[in-house]
Amino acid sequence: MIQDPFKPAKRVAGQRQDVWSIVNEAAAAYNQEHGAGSVVNMGQGFFGYNPPEFVLDAARDALGKVDCNQYSPTKGRPRLKKAIAEAYTPFFGRTINPDTEVTITTGANEGMLSAFMAFLEQGDEVIVFEPFFDQYISNIEMPGGVPVYVPLHPPPNGATQTTSAGEWTLDMAELEKAITDKTRMLVLNTPHNPIGKVFTRAELQAIGDLCVKHNIIILSDEVYDRLYYVPFTRAATLSPEIAKLTLTVGSGGKNFYCTGWRVGWLVGPEPLIKYVSAAHTRICYSSVSPLQEATAVAFEQAEAHGFWEESKKEMKGKMDRFNAIWDELGLPYSDPQGGYFVLVNLAKVKLPEDYEFPAHVASRPRDFKLSWFFIKELGIAAIPPTEFFTEGNAHIVEDWLRFAVCKEDEVLDKAKERLRGLKKYIQ
Amino acid sequence: MIQDPFKPAKRVAGQRQDVWSIVNEAAAAYNQEHGAGSVVNMGQGFFGYNPPEFVLDAARDALGKVDCNQYSPTKGRPRLKKAIAEAYTPFFGRTINPDTEVTITTGANEGMLSAFMAFLEQGDEVIVFEPFFDQYISNIEMPGGVPVYVPLHPPPNGATQTTSAGEWTLDMAELEKAITDKTRMLVLNTPHNPIGKVFTRAELQAIGDLCVKHNIIILSDEVYDRLYYVPFTRAATLSPEIAKLTLTVGSGGKNFYCTGWRVGWLVGPEPLIKYVSAAHTRICYSSVSPLQEATAVAFEQAEAHGFWEESKKEMKGKMDRFNAIWDELGLPYSDPQGGYFVLVNLAKVKLPEDYEFPAHVASRPRDFKLSWFFIKELGIAAIPPTEFFTEGNAHIVEDWLRFAVCKEDEVLDKAKERLRGLKKYIQ
Ligand SMILES: Cc1ncc(COP(=O)(O)O)c(C=O)c1O
Ligand SMILES: Cc1ncc(COP(=O)(O)O)c(C=O)c1O
Repeated sequence: MIQDPFKPAKRVAGQRQDVWSIVNEAAAAYNQEHGAGSVVNMGQGFFGYNPPEFVLDAARDALGKVDCNQYSPTKGRPRLKKAIAEAYTPFFGRTINPDTEVTITTGANEGMLSAFMAFLEQGDEVIVFEPFFDQYISNIEMPGGVPVYVPLHPPPNGATQTTSAGEWTLDMAELEKAITDKTRMLVLNTPHNPIGKVFTRAELQAIGDLCVKHNIIILSDEVYDRLYYVPFTRAATLSPEIAKLTLTVGSGGKNFYCTGWRVGWLVGPEPLIKYVSAAHTRICYSSVSPLQEATAVAFEQAEAHGFWEESKKEMKGKMDRFNAIWDELGLPYSDPQGGYFVLVNLAKVKLPEDYEFPAHVASRPRDFKLSWFFIKELGIAAIPPTEFFTEGNAHIVEDWLRFAVCKEDEVLDKAKERLRGLKKYIQ
Repeated sequence: MIQDPFKPAKRVAGQRQDVWSIVNEAAAAYNQEHGAGSVVNMGQGFFGYNPPEFVLDAARDALGKVDCNQYSPTKGRPRLKKAIAEAYTPFFGRTINPDTEVTITTGANEGMLSAFMAFLEQGDEVIVFEPFFDQYISNIEMPGGVPVYVPLHPPPNGATQTTSAGEWTLDMAELEKAITDKTRMLVLNTPHNPIGKVFTRAELQAIGDLCVKHNIIILSDEVYDRLYYVPFTRAATLSPEIAKLTLTVGSGGKNFYCTGWRVGWLVGPEPLIKYVSAAHTRICYSSVSPLQEATAVAFEQAEAHGFWEESKKEMKGKMDRFNAIWDELGLPYSDPQGGYFVLVNLAKVKLPEDYEFPAHVASRPRDFKLSWFFIKELGIAAIPPTEFFTEGNAHIVEDWLRFAVCKEDEVLDKAKERLRGLKKYIQ
């Protein structure tokens, strides 16, 4: 007989409090003290504004159609698969087959889980660069996979001067050393969260060639694919051999400012996609129908609305608008090449010696203390990036904080005003 | 080095074509031949009509709110958790805590997967009654669990006369024999798909007591909980000891006619729910935000709109309206006590000896041939229920077909008219 029916499986047991809960709870406490909505939340990467009206209209329309409210096919609504195939065919430089080379998932997140579920057996290894989007790890471990970490190295002078996010580098020798007989997949992320790096064609080519040499599937997380401020290369376009092994991940939530819609997709060669679809069917059965339809319309009409151009310009504007405060304060940051996150180096900020942190913060690296202090004393929430590193490498970013700039301009201005309160702590 | 990068993991590999694809493809072929929309599809359990207007309005409203379009908390939107806690508190006879005893999932389906992921280690056993909702099996196997089957037995005279779905019986000795040292969970489903049985209080009590005796978690799939035509007992209300071990599964899609919205939930004691939430976070991160909000409003307003009463009355009306054809044809069926599926016994239908079936149908039990024949010759799609049995027990239902009656009345009438074409095959 089972002794303790409440004992959780190892995959969900006894993890320490995650960064999102710590930051959100601290932010909630600030609001409790100072009034609802008073904290400026630049922590999690959700948008502070709505999707464009033509996308919302499409969603409202879909709600009026019987079939849009019922189960979609498990692989996704045909209209959305077609819209995605048509949108990506010019980028990929080959005709994408909507029926066999596209599959719709419940956000990029469940899409990546489906890919891991499709190919990983117990003990198979997956190479992940540090810092990583935290969900990768549990998604790899759920089917019994083992993450193998390779760090991205910050620019050596990142603590003293503002550098480009492109200066975070991958050591190819380290990568090659991480490959073993059990390496089954490699996760790429470009534009990168949290660094904001857009990998160069040369970097991607070197990584891709290595994967071809070792028969490694490339899972290329390109959810920020419309937000790049330097030339952007898609992994699947590097060579036919690399394309054969590449699954590209996209997110309607990131593309159209609706992270809560949970519409994502994978695009790739049929021999890979078919198993991703099979796994997705077993996980969620199918994904949200009316918002798939709306995302299809969003893709169909984006160009005509000048949305892609506008969206990139707007986000770059927000990025520059916000980062001006670091220049003003003389604090160095890693200037993003893509996405909507910026990493700021706060080595120069001296926290008061006698400042009291709660135990669950005191026990974590310096960035958690910075994050706590920013919320409590300045009313600004940001994410401590050591959470996206393994313990051994966490020190690399313990002086940095991650800010999300996908917020209304007034919010960014309010944040800047509050950040001026930092002056007295800067040495 | 990996020899074949395209080799799928065992969990998604080499399964035969599933029943939904076979039926849907045959139905599509019929439409191709006879014109779009000409098949009467009573196969899959999606609704042939829209959610009520007050629910659609709520969804349209939610789309206008910034936070409703962004990530919801991983455990679900507070408003929905509260609405569900309030709706179920009177049924459960105890106050349900919305923060700790309710968790929102991507449909009931991913909710059940989350429960299995939360508690099953490799080799743990889960008792499942046959027939079963087919997704249970892959959901149990994904975390390494092993389904152990216990059949429900049809009424002995089910082939010759119409009986009540309540006459399908569980042999308690068979159930007790199936329990081993590794039995970790048991899946209940009431009202039952596909049988339409509503388990009696006495049956549930016996099952529940056994689970308490053996420390087995009860996963009670009650997605059809608003559609019962005889008294309905919820597993979680049988005794405090049983409640302690019971996770109840619900579905907004089933409750409010929107299977494509993918909003589901689990309700249960905190020590169980917290791990279900943890698993859900790792699977989907969070569930669809605006439709969670709409589902909250649906619960808040359902009573005032007389929706629950109306919805049950309407479905029972559809059931009786449709089943009249079997009385007319002299074909026995299993009269449902709940839900929207009816099993009909077609032993009396003689298929033409020389009728040609495609190989993937010819190789399956008689119900697959009946299903194929019904689509091709009558233009009506129904589901062969042997798919919901293991091979050894499939013979139990090889003369039955499952029809979904959650369709417009005109569709039901059209189906009846077409079914009159069966007369010449009935012996
Ligand atoms: C790098 C990266 N990948 C994937 C995701 C998840 O995307 P989705 O919301 O579509 O699941 C995120 C969200 O923050 C992300 O930053
Ligand atoms: C018994 C049973 N459980 C669960 C589900 C899945 O419900 P949902 O659509 O909410 O995932 C179904 C759907 O047909 C069902 O019949």
